[in-house]
Parts: sequence; structure tokens; C-alpha cells
Amino acid sequence: MSKTIAINAGSSSLKWQLYNMPEEEVIAKGIVERIGLNDSIFTVKYGDGQKFEKVEDIPTHELAVQMLLDELINLNILASYDEITGVGHRVVAGGEIFKESVVISEEVLKKIEDLAELAPLHNPANAAGIRAFKAILPDITSVAVFDTAFHSTMPPVAYRYAIPTEYYEKYGARKYGAHGTSHMYVSQKAAEMLGKDIDEVKIITAHIGNGASITAVRHGRSIDTSMGFTPLAGVMMGTRSGDIDPSLIPFLMEKEEITDVNEMIEVLNKKSGLLGVSDTSSDMRDIIQARKEGNEKAQLAFEVFTDRIRKYIAQYFAVLNGADAVVFTAGIGENSNWVRTAVIEKMSWFGMEIDESKNVFGVEGDISTPDSKVKVLVIPTDEELVIARDVERLKRFE
Amino acid sequence: MSKTIAINAGSSSLKWQLYNMPEEEVIAKGIVERIGLNDSIFTVKYGDGQKFEKVEDIPTHELAVQMLLDELINLNILASYDEITGVGHRVVAGGEIFKESVVISEEVLKKIEDLAELAPLHNPANAAGIRAFKAILPDITSVAVFDTAFHSTMPPVAYRYAIPTEYYEKYGARKYGAHGTSHMYVSQKAAEMLGKDIDEVKIITAHIGNGASITAVRHGRSIDTSMGFTPLAGVMMGTRSGDIDPSLIPFLMEKEEITDVNEMIEVLNKKSGLLGVSDTSSDMRDIIQARKEGNEKAQLAFEVFTDRIRKYIAQYFAVLNGADAVVFTAGIGENSNWVRTAVIEKMSWFGMEIDESKNVFGVEGDISTPDSKVKVLVIPTDEELVIARDVERLKRFE
Repeated sequence: MSKTIAINAGSSSLKWQLYNMPEEEVIAKGIVERIGLNDSIFTVKYGDGQKFEKVEDIPTHELAVQMLLDELINLNILASYDEITGVGHRVVAGGEIFKESVVISEEVLKKIEDLAELAPLHNPANAAGIRAFKAILPDITSVAVFDTAFHSTMPPVAYRYAIPTEYYEKYGARKYGAHGTSHMYVSQKAAEMLGKDIDEVKIITAHIGNGASITAVRHGRSIDTSMGFTPLAGVMMGTRSGDIDPSLIPFLMEKEEITDVNEMIEVLNKKSGLLGVSDTSSDMRDIIQARKEGNEKAQLAFEVFTDRIRKYIAQYFAVLNGADAVVFTAGIGENSNWVRTAVIEKMSWFGMEIDESKNVFGVEGDISTPDSKVKVLVIPTDEELVIARDVERLKRFE
Repeated sequence: MSKTIAINAGSSSLKWQLYNMPEEEVIAKGIVERIGLNDSIFTVKYGDGQKFEKVEDIPTHELAVQMLLDELINLNILASYDEITGVGHRVVAGGEIFKESVVISEEVLKKIEDLAELAPLHNPANAAGIRAFKAILPDITSVAVFDTAFHSTMPPVAYRYAIPTEYYEKYGARKYGAHGTSHMYVSQKAAEMLGKDIDEVKIITAHIGNGASITAVRHGRSIDTSMGFTPLAGVMMGTRSGDIDPSLIPFLMEKEEITDVNEMIEVLNKKSGLLGVSDTSSDMRDIIQARKEGNEKAQLAFEVFTDRIRKYIAQYFAVLNGADAVVFTAGIGENSNWVRTAVIEKMSWFGMEIDESKNVFGVEGDISTPDSKVKVLVIPTDEELVIARDVERLKRFE
């Protein structure tokens, strides 16, 4: 029995999940937060609900990985490092180079770093996580799983922008999408749930977390998605604006006396979305609470949020020319019956109807009525499992 | 019998149409082009197919108006200036101030000029046209008809962007839309054609010319539209990009070594759209010819163009929760059966089916099959008539 660890490294965090493979059994999982800052937080969940936590300064990703491995042994989760035979890393941007998961060579790692301009916040952090594991466990199979890979099947009509062609040809200015691993996983699960082959179904997947994207899936492939060149585009998110009129950028820069366009984009990434409209919070739970208390800005934020999701779902009904199911997943999609109801109840014309007795907190599966022509499903996503599976699959080719 | 003239003034042009009102009979129409440049072109069409043209330098809008009035007398279209009792001016941006047509006072004119930041190319030119007529015909009723007015009924959920609320409150950063006069006119015509009261129908209007926008109309009111803060947003157009990922702006500025963000927006306004993707032309007729000849970039431009229209129509099926009809109008919408077919044939799931024997050049009216649950209509727009009607209506209150 071999163990595989799935890693999602951010600039100051490292999320991990340890599996027995091929059993797909989760042995332990955890997160290291505030890497590089004071009082880093190190958390492990394992066994039957046990939890280990400590707070101390962890200056680098490499030290975080070292601590993680040491604690796995201290906690008797591992007997030795050697039990881990594979590590899989989430990488946000694969550009046009990586259309599927790959074993990470030095050359691959270099390319991941070069793709930082497509995901300036994410790829360097992902690469730091990879380097940390390479330093400590140099001999195990190391695999990169790209957030964009599932969307590499999009046709040009979906991924090209109506901007000069040379911008695409020279600089790769096109739509890449994100959350691909999640959209793939839940669309496959949806086909199973419908009792059909993935080749026979048309699925619209709504991954709605703090980041959010909607995808049109046909024959098991992404054929369009709402995120764009970067994860800023598409639907409204926790702190991201999603689509706006590009002319607002120079207009607001002048009004706000902002001279650096990147600073304006920073506002659209960090201070917009639910946070910007509500003036309250980027967290949907807070928004829902505030609107219950009569906060009008929170009410508007909620309405705009669900309006944008509805519009993308509708678009993908056109892209697919119909759909068998709409799937909600990720933090908000899995947990907020309010959001699901608000999105779907105004789309009755599309043949969707939610059974509110099923649409409760913690539900999984079909939440639509028997008469609903298009099924509405709630499916918890599992990006870590996809990563672990890809490591297992690619290990055989090493 | 009184005569009313409808004016659409651009920065170097003045389009006009002269009516007998209230008969709504067009007596003459024409355009003055290249105002302020060498060899300005002055054209009048009148009578039963007669045409008058001359080329000479016309340095200002005021001289263009003077020449227009003189020639109307020379050509025996008018006996004297006094026959014109009203003039209506198209004004592109009315902001949040003008929610309907108004008689133009000095104060109104000042406000129109102040709204130039919402339409920097259009409002100053519109104001120049107004001032020219005021100088020469100071005593007639002068009315401003705003392109944005019809969209003033949009609810906040449609017009607000997911950006910080203060940007809306302090600077009016919101969606205003455009082509309102056209969307209003064709949606009313569509209701007539369906034999129903405008209050009873849900209509999606697709105004597709060199500029293009799609609108959702319920109870005769615009409740959402694809153009945004400015006419850059929404669907792909002749030279405009429509919606893009805002992050592309800093990325492309760096790659192209552009330091002024306005220069980047200029590329999105002038060198994008059909022109940018096809590398051939901004004119749909050229694109259709080029794709017939196997030009792959023209083919892609055509596909992206129709894809974006389809996606907005689909969105508005969600916004309206169904629709009775989709209307095509304006240059491309009225004349290109290719575009209409490409948009609709992939939306059969929405209950739309075109009868290709009806979908021919020059058609007006219903082009869908009897079984088509949602009707597909071609309705020539007539913004000038709406302007003339508004002058006639407001004249009574003077």
C-alpha cells in the first residue's frame, strides 16, 4: 500500500491531504497558514476526528513541508517518509503548454514558473510548494495537476477574445478558465448520478466558492467557461468583480487619481464582488445574515451575485443547446440553499424546479422535483482526490 | 401642417431627416459628412428618388446647418425656414439625469455637455449640433432624445457592477446602455406584430449594426441591456471588443509597451471586434465574403460574433424567464440572413426555428416557422421617427 499526498500551495499557505492509494482513503489532512509571517498556524486532522494544532513561526514553504513530514511521523500517521511514494501539486495556470497532468521535471517546473504572468499570485506559490517537496523528498513521483487543463478542450470560438489576433498569437491572450479539476470531477459524478455515460450528457457545472466559475461540459469535456485570461473574469465573486465594462478602468483611475493600472486591477480583485457591493463582507454567510437584518446593500450584493450566475448558466444552455443537469459545488454552491434557490427559481422557463424539502444545508445529490426536466444537483467537489488519482495514474509511467 | 427635423450629429457629420408631422411623412433626408475637413460632402434625398449632392469645405456644424436650410429652400422642399417648427436631436448619454426626452434649455444643454465623460466621442458632437440649430433657428422647439433614456427603467441588479459601491455613488459608475430609441421602437413594433399589448409580452431585441446591443424588454420597458457604462461593453462589434477580462488591459499594456491606459481602450474601441479577429474588415459583408473564400480568420470572426450575440440572447431568456420573440434590427440585424441563421440555429432548444424560405435579404416581419414557440422577427428600426414623434409630443407642452 502506497501513500500519496495532494498539495495546494498558496503564497502563505499549504493545504494538503494524505491518501492510501489506490484505495482513495483519506488518512490525514491539514493546512499550514501564515507561512512567512509571524505565528504560522499548523493544523492536522486525522484518525477518527483527532486534531493537532500548533502555532509557531514557519518562514518558508520548505520548512512547512519538513514540519508536516515530521509531525506525520510524530503522530504515528506515517512510520517513515518512505511510505509516501507520490506527491501531486495543484498548479493554477498551465497556459497553452499543459493540457493534462504531467510528471514534474526541472524543465516542467521552469515552465510553470514562466507561466506566472497568467497567474501572478498563484503559480509562483505553486512552484514554491513543488520545490519544497523536491528538496525534502527528491525521489518520489511528483505530478503537476493544472487548474486550466480540463478547459484545454475549449474551441477557439469560446477561448478567443474579440481583440486583435496578434495579441493571441504573440502573447497567448485568450481565455484559459480555472477550477478545471473541480468542474471535471463534479461533471463526471453528475453523469453517474444521472445513470448515464458522460459522453451522452450535457452538464453545466457551477463551482461557487470564494472564487467562482461556471462551465459548459459536453462529452465530458469543457467547451466554455466563465473565467477568462485570469480568474478575475466571469461571475461576481467574494472580492472579485467578474466582467465589467473595460472603459470603467480609465474612468475610475482618473476619478480616484490612480496612476498605475495594476492598482486598479487590484481593486477589482480584492475590494470588489460581494465585499465591494455590500460594504460588509466577502463571505456569503455574512451577506445572507445581513440581508435578513434588512441591510439593503447586502440584499443588492446577493441579488447581483445570483443574477450573474443565472446569466452564465443561461449562456451555457445556449452553448450546449440544452442541458441535462446543472450542478452546484464548492463552498457556496454546496452549502447555500439560499443561493441555489435564488438562481434557479427565476429560471422555471428553462425547465428547472427545486424541491425545497430537499434543498437543505448539507444535502448531496438531486434537489430538483421529479417534474424538473433539467436536474439540479448538489455535488461536493474533491479536487484533492483528482490530484491523488493523477499521481497514481502517472506513477505507472515513470 | 408643420415640419420637424430629426438630427443625429457626429463629430464630423450631421445626419438629418425632415418630416411632415403629425403625418409622419418623410419629405427629405440627408447627411453632411467630413465637417471640419476638406471636401465635405453634402447629400439630400427627396421627392420620388431625387438626389442632390455637392462637395465643398464645410468648416463647422453651424455652417452645415445653414447650408442644409438654404438648400431645402433652393430645392423647393421648403418655402421658408418658418415651416420648420421643431427639431429633435439624438443625444447618446443622458446619464442618470435624463430619463426621458426633454425640451432643450440652456441649462439642459450645459448638462448634456457635462455628461461628455460618459460618451466622450458622442455628447460633445451632439451638443455642437444643438448649438448650431439654436444659433440659426432660435425660436423653434428643440428637443433632446437620449439613447440611454429607454434603459433608465433597468433595476439596480442589472445596472450595478460588482465594484465598490462608492464608485457608483460618487461617480455614477454603472451600466447605462445605448440604442435605447431603437430598442424601444422595435419592441413596440414587435408587440403589434404579435397582435398583443406591449404590457403582455417579453421581447429580446438585438440591435446589430456597426455598434450592437441586446436588450430584454418586459411590459414595454428595458430591464437589462448588453452595453455598459459606455458602448464598448457587451457583444463583439465591428471594431469594438465587447466584454473582455479586465486583466488583459495591464497585461497587453506591458507587452505592447503602452503607457497610457486610454490608448489601450482606444485599441479595444477601434481595432478590435470583427476587424481585430479577422485582420480583414470591420464590415460584416466583407467578413461573409472572405469566409466564403475560405479565409479562416474571417470564419472565426463570424463565429465569435454570432456566439456572443447568442449568449446575450440566452441571458435575457433568463432575465425575462422566457420570451415571446427575438427581434433583429439595424444594419446587420436587418440585412444579414447569415448572421440571423447562425445565431438562432444553435438555439433550437430555446424553441426557436427559422423558416429559411422567409429568411432572405430585404425581409421584414416574422421569419420563424409556425411551430417556433418563440417568434423570430426582423424589424427595420427607425430612430428618426421616434425623435420626430417626441418633438411633436413635447411641442404641446411648450
